[in-house]
Amino acid sequence: MKLHYKLSVVFLLLLVFHLKAQQIEPYKPVSSVAVTLYSKVLKEYRNIYIHYPKLDSANPDKRFPVLYLLDGESHFDMLSQYTDYLSRWDVNVIPKMIVVGITNTKRTRDLTPTESIINYFGQPDTVKNSWMKPSGGNKLFLQFIHEELMPFIDANYKTQSFKIFGGHSFGGLATINCMLTHPEMFDAYIAISPSLWWDHEYILKLADKKLKKGTAVNKILFYSDASEGVSDKSTYHTNLLKFDSLLTAKSLTNLPHLYKYYPTESHMTSPMSGYYDALRFIYKDWKEPE
Amino acid sequence: MKLHYKLSVVFLLLLVFHLKAQQIEPYKPVSSVAVTLYSKVLKEYRNIYIHYPKLDSANPDKRFPVLYLLDGESHFDMLSQYTDYLSRWDVNVIPKMIVVGITNTKRTRDLTPTESIINYFGQPDTVKNSWMKPSGGNKLFLQFIHEELMPFIDANYKTQSFKIFGGHSFGGLATINCMLTHPEMFDAYIAISPSLWWDHEYILKLADKKLKKGTAVNKILFYSDASEGVSDKSTYHTNLLKFDSLLTAKSLTNLPHLYKYYPTESHMTSPMSGYYDALRFIYKDWKEPE
Repeated sequence: MKLHYKLSVVFLLLLVFHLKAQQIEPYKPVSSVAVTLYSKVLKEYRNIYIHYPKLDSANPDKRFPVLYLLDGESHFDMLSQYTDYLSRWDVNVIPKMIVVGITNTKRTRDLTPTESIINYFGQPDTVKNSWMKPSGGNKLFLQFIHEELMPFIDANYKTQSFKIFGGHSFGGLATINCMLTHPEMFDAYIAISPSLWWDHEYILKLADKKLKKGTAVNKILFYSDASEGVSDKSTYHTNLLKFDSLLTAKSLTNLPHLYKYYPTESHMTSPMSGYYDALRFIYKDWKEPE
Repeated sequence: MKLHYKLSVVFLLLLVFHLKAQQIEPYKPVSSVAVTLYSKVLKEYRNIYIHYPKLDSANPDKRFPVLYLLDGESHFDMLSQYTDYLSRWDVNVIPKMIVVGITNTKRTRDLTPTESIINYFGQPDTVKNSWMKPSGGNKLFLQFIHEELMPFIDANYKTQSFKIFGGHSFGGLATINCMLTHPEMFDAYIAISPSLWWDHEYILKLADKKLKKGTAVNKILFYSDASEGVSDKSTYHTNLLKFDSLLTAKSLTNLPHLYKYYPTESHMTSPMSGYYDALRFIYKDWKEPE
């Protein structure tokens, strides 16, 4: 009887261990939501991903800067992880922030500043259903962000006024266009491998016109390019060098800016280094408030 | 009646739009699980995070390399995102892989190769409940990985034989110790800011003893350090330079290795650059099989 009792306990323990050894639960690394918003400006539904920091129970009213990120479907996970890691208590080199990933519907339409069918090679793209069509809707898209998305985010999350606008490729074209045409919208702009080739370098001409020599810009700007392009004469790199020279020639004040060239990275890998360096640059003098 | 009908439709549409505008769902960026395993070797439960790539329905039997990662609670999200992004179809510079994040119970015990109370300053840490105690359990911990964790992963996931072992700080000490004492366990080793200062540079002496001059190692190795340490004479940097010189002096063959020094990074930010550079280095010649 005693042995039987002992064996039962052993059997029960083995069963518990066996069950425990199989215990598998879903892992939840981040707290994020996917929101569907109807935009009256764009007359369509837009899917937005929102990542918000874990609230600090000792400081529940703390407010956070917001990073508005283009190509949300591509880079939202990256920026959620970057901002979470870099703002951890034991890393703590940037503040905790809200990441708003805007996903695309008609990407070329929303992210380009002008209507154009001139492709990367400077030739007209005359294909009927060209990926370049429609284009030139960036003004309306920025209006959607300004008048609809930002009020939604501010109404639903604990936001600070400090806002960052980040984009890659056409997204980088859009963030620079925003800085030139609506500088009041954001405090810092990130342009990773911006497609400055768009419409015969339209943005370079716009920058030359809009940025008045010797004036204060009061913005933070990061831009970068990589080994990209189809010939030895990389249009990305050539144009980024032109943009960088233009900023220098204008002798602008209060425009902390950093240009990074990543010769060992490609058009698609460079966002990993670019967004990292951009966040570190924007917050290079940041210190946790006491 | 007609007007009433029209107004009802308008009202219904407005209601639908209003409801849609509020539609908020949880966002699920990755498919990962948290597993609790009982280790007979360590006589305790261990929590393991496992991230696996989205299966390709056209190729359901595809098998994946596995990255075993120390300090899972700190770096599992990072490596899940890195491996996902870098293996995306439109980035595609590394293969899709499984990430196994091993979380800590008694970190110093598991990750250190010897029992020691000699601290970073070369002084004995005589505090009764010192964070340095207990130590020296890395051999048993590697046995747990080899005999219990690896068989569990291989039994439950579509694994290839190629395995990577990644660690930071004490974790980097552990991965180098593994390469020296159980080189058969992994194909590639990552040591980000390894704590080579441990026990009067025990690992440097072990490396000198174990690595025979002119022999083939048949492993891939990445190691790095940053601006870390408490004096101008950074013990991390000094020791990494010694380790790097030792490898050079040994004239080892078939040991592709990369040493990176990140002077603008700190002990806690360097994993972001280090793990990125390590993955790119390990797979620098990788091409998607046809």
